[in-house]
Amino acid sequence: MKNLIVCLLLIAMAVGCKPTNEVSAVDEQAVIQVLKNQELAWNNGDINGFMRGYWNSPKLSFTSNNTVTTGWDQTWKNFQKAYPTQEKMGELNFEIEQLNQIYSDAYHIIGKFTLTRKDDSPSGFFTLIVKKIDGKWKITSDHTCG
Amino acid sequence: MKNLIVCLLLIAMAVGCKPTNEVSAVDEQAVIQVLKNQELAWNNGDINGFMRGYWNSPKLSFTSNNTVTTGWDQTWKNFQKAYPTQEKMGELNFEIEQLNQIYSDAYHIIGKFTLTRKDDSPSGFFTLIVKKIDGKWKITSDHTCG
Repeated sequence: MKNLIVCLLLIAMAVGCKPTNEVSAVDEQAVIQVLKNQELAWNNGDINGFMRGYWNSPKLSFTSNNTVTTGWDQTWKNFQKAYPTQEKMGELNFEIEQLNQIYSDAYHIIGKFTLTRKDDSPSGFFTLIVKKIDGKWKITSDHTCG
Repeated sequence: MKNLIVCLLLIAMAVGCKPTNEVSAVDEQAVIQVLKNQELAWNNGDINGFMRGYWNSPKLSFTSNNTVTTGWDQTWKNFQKAYPTQEKMGELNFEIEQLNQIYSDAYHIIGKFTLTRKDDSPSGFFTLIVKKIDGKWKITSDHTCG
């Protein structure tokens, strides 16, 4: 009996440490919420709030048409420089085209962004890696082109 | 004794199914080789050989500046249409900027491509998800902009 209990405990420990590939509806909603929160912050003229969707790390990567930026700090500075006023920020809309689980703590998203402004409406596509880090879902890599 | 053997077998099964996050130099080289093979095929005017780097599946995604293409077949047709001659294909060079393991069977690559042709040299950045499928590393998602 004692051996059986020890055995069951050991199996529970081994299995409990195993990342699974089961898709979780709760996780999917949480990942989608990261983008919804970014949209909301942007449309309130709040770049700092928008940046909260990103992994606050020197390893964050942001790739655009012309360059790869590494690090949350530089990515934040680039956004502030490109969008210095609420008029320049316009109204942001995200459409998610694909949401794919890579494994239990990492998702891959393909989507479309549109910025509606007074004089133009730039748009394009983005590819994101979103990971669960310290219990929170954060964008660790963003490739956005327009 | 019999219970101990059964227990050990069960633990081995549980642990054996656990994907690990240990970075493997062999896997990293295998992932890089996928791109080297694509470069080689392209520079031999071999689009079919280039396409072998991609997951041959209707779920392959290829995102460019303007569109998201789903499926290996359509991606192949698009390449054939855009690059109908070896002159149009030019000489391809990939530079890997970042190679990040997501988990043991999935990597994320950011890189730069340059096409050197007689009249122009288009270039840009790409983000790839590369996964180990049936023992082979394949690109399952490609976001390339120039």
